[in-house]
Amino acid sequence: MTTARAPYYLDCDTGIDDALAIGYLLAAAADETAGIEIVGIGSVSGNVSASVGAYNTLDLLALAGAAGIPVAIGAHDPQGGSFRGGAPHVHGANGVGDVEIDKSDVAVSAESAAELLVRLAHEHEGELRVIAIGPLTNIAEALRLDPELPGLVKELTLMGGAARVPGNITPVAEANIANDADAAAEVFAAEWFITMVPLDVTMTNVFLEHHRQTLIDSGRPVATALGHMLDYYFEFYVGVYGHRASALHDPLAVAIALGEVALKTAPVVRVLVDDTAGPGRGQTICDLRGSYNGFPEQSNAHTRVVLELESDFAPVLLARLLTA
Amino acid sequence: MTTARAPYYLDCDTGIDDALAIGYLLAAAADETAGIEIVGIGSVSGNVSASVGAYNTLDLLALAGAAGIPVAIGAHDPQGGSFRGGAPHVHGANGVGDVEIDKSDVAVSAESAAELLVRLAHEHEGELRVIAIGPLTNIAEALRLDPELPGLVKELTLMGGAARVPGNITPVAEANIANDADAAAEVFAAEWFITMVPLDVTMTNVFLEHHRQTLIDSGRPVATALGHMLDYYFEFYVGVYGHRASALHDPLAVAIALGEVALKTAPVVRVLVDDTAGPGRGQTICDLRGSYNGFPEQSNAHTRVVLELESDFAPVLLARLLTA
Repeated sequence: MTTARAPYYLDCDTGIDDALAIGYLLAAAADETAGIEIVGIGSVSGNVSASVGAYNTLDLLALAGAAGIPVAIGAHDPQGGSFRGGAPHVHGANGVGDVEIDKSDVAVSAESAAELLVRLAHEHEGELRVIAIGPLTNIAEALRLDPELPGLVKELTLMGGAARVPGNITPVAEANIANDADAAAEVFAAEWFITMVPLDVTMTNVFLEHHRQTLIDSGRPVATALGHMLDYYFEFYVGVYGHRASALHDPLAVAIALGEVALKTAPVVRVLVDDTAGPGRGQTICDLRGSYNGFPEQSNAHTRVVLELESDFAPVLLARLLTA
Repeated sequence: MTTARAPYYLDCDTGIDDALAIGYLLAAAADETAGIEIVGIGSVSGNVSASVGAYNTLDLLALAGAAGIPVAIGAHDPQGGSFRGGAPHVHGANGVGDVEIDKSDVAVSAESAAELLVRLAHEHEGELRVIAIGPLTNIAEALRLDPELPGLVKELTLMGGAARVPGNITPVAEANIANDADAAAEVFAAEWFITMVPLDVTMTNVFLEHHRQTLIDSGRPVATALGHMLDYYFEFYVGVYGHRASALHDPLAVAIALGEVALKTAPVVRVLVDDTAGPGRGQTICDLRGSYNGFPEQSNAHTRVVLELESDFAPVLLARLLTA
C-alpha cells in the first residue's frame, strides 16, 4: 500500500541558509514518517544569481544522493530592475561560503522556474505546497502565467519581511522582499493562504559554534559541508550579533511549512508590501493593531505572520541535519 | 535669592490626554523642587481644531489658577492639506470628553503659536525646552520662520510615532505624525536633539478605573475634571485593549521632558518620516538595526527613541495630578 506524500515545490536563491533549508527538506523527505515529497525546485536571483543558485542546488542534491529532483533556473532580474550581484559578503563568492562541493552532472530543467511551478500546481491540483525562500520574482511570474494559481496551490510559506523588528537591508525592509518589492506586492495581494516567516523569528533563532561543530563532526557529507559553509556566515553575523552565530532564516521557513515547529504567536492579518520609491520600499506592512487585544479576526486577511515560536528552533534543525 | 527655572514651551491639541499633560506640567511648575517654568503654550489642530485646543487650554489654566501663561493659536491646517475635524470619537465633541469647564476670560495671544515659539527661543536662548504633543505643524512653521531655531532650543521632546509597535491610524502610522507627515519630516530632519516618545511606551503605560476614581475622589478641581474626562477616553479604548483603560500618550512625553521618568531602553538613532503618498505615509522609520548588538553608535543620529521605561508611569502621573 502506498500512502500519498504531500508534494512540495521550493523556490530558492542558494545561498548558505538556503543550503541549510535544502538540507532540512531533503532530510525530511528521506524520513518516511514526515510524509513529504519534493517535486521540484526553482532558483531566483537573490543571495546569488538564479543560475549560480540552480547549480549550487543541483550540487547539494547530488551530495545528498537526491539528484532526481528537477531544478529549474528562474528569473535573473527583479521585475522592475536588474540583479545587482547578490550578497557575496554574506554568502561567499560562490554563494556557499566558498566551500567546494563536487559538481553535479545533472542538467537543469528545460522549463523556467515559473513554468515548472505552474505545471506542478496543475499536476498536484489542490495539494501543492509552495515554499519560497528567495525574492518572490518567480512566484509573481507564475501568477501572471496562470492567474488561477492561488486556487491550485494548497498554501504558500515564505521567508521574508519584518513585522515588529527592524529590516536587514533598510531600517524596515528585509532582503527577500526588498530585492523585488514589486513581485512581493503582487504575491501578497493574490488570494492564497500565506504563512510569512519574518525576521521576527528568523533573527532570534540562531546556530552557535557548538551546533556548527556538531555538523562538521557528524562525518555525514551534507551536514559536514553545511558546517563548513557556516564558518563564512558566522563571520558576517559578528557585525550583527556581536559574536559568531547565524540567523536561521530559510530553514525555519521550511520547518514551519512542514508543520514541524510549534507557533506561539502567529496572527492571520492583512499584509501589504510597500512598493513605492519612498524610504519604506520593501517593507511588509502587517496590520498588527489588534495586538493589544489578542488579535481579533480581520476581514480580508489571508496571511499568517509568525511572530513567536513555542521553543528554540536550533535543536530541531540540528536533529534533522544530522540525518542529512 | 532666585534660582533660574528651566523654561518650557508646550505645543498641544487639547484633547483629553493633552489635558492630562497640561495637568502634569502645571503641577510640576507649582512644585518648586521641580525647577521648571511654563513660558508659553501653542495650539495646533489634531484631536480638535487649533482654536478649540487653545480655548480648552485657557480654561484648564484658569481652573488651575495659572491663567497668566500665554496661549497662542497655531496652525489650523496641516501643511499639505486641510484639517479633517479631529477625533471626536476619542476625545468627545468639545475635545475634553464633553466635560464642561468654566470658560476662562483670558484672551489668546496676538501671536501665532509659531511666532510665540520663535520669540521665546530667542528670549531664552540655549535654554528653551520644547514639548510637542500634537501634530508638528507649528514646529515646522517655526523652523521656516527662523531656520536658526534648532541652535536656539535646548531640546525637543515629542509624543509621536511608533518604532516596534503598530501605528494607531494606519498599521504603521501614529496620529500626531500622520496628521501632518510633511511637517514631521521637516522637524525630524532639522538638526536638534529630539526625544521621541512613541506608542511603544505610551500604549503600554495605562490608567485604569482605580486611577480615574482616585482623581475624582481627590476633590481638587483639575484632578476631578480630568477624572471625568477620562470616562470618555476609557470607552474609546475598550475597542483597543478590550477593557476600560487609557493610554498615557501626552503626559508621558511631558514627564520624560522633565526628566521625571527613568528610561530603560532609549537608543539615539536615525529617524526619518515617510512623507510619500504610499501605504507607509506617516511612519517614523527608526533605524533599530543595531538592536541585536546593544545599539552601537550611529553617525548623524540625533533622535533618542524611547522604547522601554524602567517602571510603570501611572503612579508617577497620578501622584503629580493629585497636586494639580
